[in-house]
Amino acid sequence: MGENIGATARAMANFGLSDLRLINPRDGWPNLHAEKMSSGAFDHIPQPQIYKSLLDASHDCHMLLATTARRRDMVKPVLTPQEAAEKTHICMKHDERVGFVFGAERTGLENDEIALCDSIINIPTDPAFSSLNLAQAVLLVVSQISAVPDFPPEPRAKDSPLADKETVFGFLERLEDDLDKAAFFKSEGLKPTMVRNIQNIFTRAELTEQEVRTLHGILTSLTSKLRP
Amino acid sequence: MGENIGATARAMANFGLSDLRLINPRDGWPNLHAEKMSSGAFDHIPQPQIYKSLLDASHDCHMLLATTARRRDMVKPVLTPQEAAEKTHICMKHDERVGFVFGAERTGLENDEIALCDSIINIPTDPAFSSLNLAQAVLLVVSQISAVPDFPPEPRAKDSPLADKETVFGFLERLEDDLDKAAFFKSEGLKPTMVRNIQNIFTRAELTEQEVRTLHGILTSLTSKLRP
Repeated sequence: MGENIGATARAMANFGLSDLRLINPRDGWPNLHAEKMSSGAFDHIPQPQIYKSLLDASHDCHMLLATTARRRDMVKPVLTPQEAAEKTHICMKHDERVGFVFGAERTGLENDEIALCDSIINIPTDPAFSSLNLAQAVLLVVSQISAVPDFPPEPRAKDSPLADKETVFGFLERLEDDLDKAAFFKSEGLKPTMVRNIQNIFTRAELTEQEVRTLHGILTSLTSKLRP
Repeated sequence: MGENIGATARAMANFGLSDLRLINPRDGWPNLHAEKMSSGAFDHIPQPQIYKSLLDASHDCHMLLATTARRRDMVKPVLTPQEAAEKTHICMKHDERVGFVFGAERTGLENDEIALCDSIINIPTDPAFSSLNLAQAVLLVVSQISAVPDFPPEPRAKDSPLADKETVFGFLERLEDDLDKAAFFKSEGLKPTMVRNIQNIFTRAELTEQEVRTLHGILTSLTSKLRP
C-alpha cells in the first residue's frame, strides 16, 4: 500500500534512516498516496530503489532481520526491537549493513523470505489485541535503532512516598492564595508567568507526602507571623 | 481530533494500557472517527473519562510526564521515552500512578499544562525532519512503557567479519545445485520445504566469510568424491 510506504519513509526520516528498498510495490512507483502520507519525507531521504526479490534487495547486507509475529514453524532467534537495535549497533561498529525486512500489510512475510533472514524481530504486544499496522511496526523498529541511551536512570532516592497531584496542587493553590493575600504579585499582568514559575519549582521537585506537609507547616508559620 | 484518539486507544490496547482520559475533546465524545481508527480497541479498554482540565484529570496521579519538544522556557528534567519507562516502572513498584500528558495535534501542550508536570518526555528525532503525529508519539511512549527487556544482547563472538548476503546466498544456491545433482531431493513436492529448512540452518548461523569459504571447501571435497 502506498500509504504504508509513505508513512514508512516519514518514520525513517524522523529517526535518521535513509535507505528504503521496495520489493515489487503493489501500486507501482512513484505513488501519490505514498507521497501524501510521507509529509515531505522524500525531500529528506533518497528515492527508494525497486527490487524484484528479497534476494536482490539484500545483496550487500550482512544481516537480515525479519519483523513478524512469532512463528512456530521457523527456528530462528527472536529479538525484541530493543535487542535488534543493540545487534544493529554492534554490526554498525563492524561496518556491516543490517536490513530490516517488513512484509505487506495483510499477507506479511512469506516463509521463503523469512527463511533468508538471520533473526526475527517480534514486537511484544498484548496477545488480546496484537494487531499493529505495518507503518506502526516500522516506526517502533526504526525509533529503537536510532535510540541511544545517554545515562542510566536515577533510582528513587527518597524514603517517604511521592505526594499525589491533588496534594501537590492543593499546596500550590494555598501558596498562591497566601501570596495574593501578602500582596506578592505586584502586577496582575505578570502574575500568570510568576505563578507558572512557582509551579515549575514545586512540580520539578518530585515532592514526597512528608515534604508537602513540611511546606504547609512553613506556610502556616510564615503567614501567622505576617498577620498574627 | 477523533482520529488521533482512536489511534491512541489502539496503541494503548496493543501495549496493555487501559486508562485513557480526555480533556475537552474538540469533536465531542463519543466520536465516529475515533471509533473507526481504533480498530476495535474500545472493546478491549474501558470507555475514556472526560475531564475539563489537566488538574481534574490528574488528581489521583503521583507523577505527570508531558510529551513535548524541548522547551527553553521551562526548566524541567527531560527524559527519553526509555527513561520515562524506567521511571514509570519504579513508580509502579511503589504503587504510584503515572500520567502521560499529550497535547492536541497542532497546538501541543500549553505552558500552564507543562508547568503542572514533573518532567518532559522528549522523543529524540532527526532535527531536520522532526514532526511526529500525535498518535505516533503516543505509540512510541506506550510501547516503551510495556517493554521489559528479558536478557542482555550477545556480543559479537567471532573474529572473522560476517559474510555478506551475496556470499551466503551464493553458497546456498551452490548447495541446492549440488544436492539436486546428487539426487538428494526424493520428491519435487517436498523440495521447497526441504530447501527452506536448509536455508534456515545456514542463515541462522550468522556465518563469517571464513566459515562460508570452509563450507565451499567441504562441498568441493564431497562432490569430487561423489563424482570423480
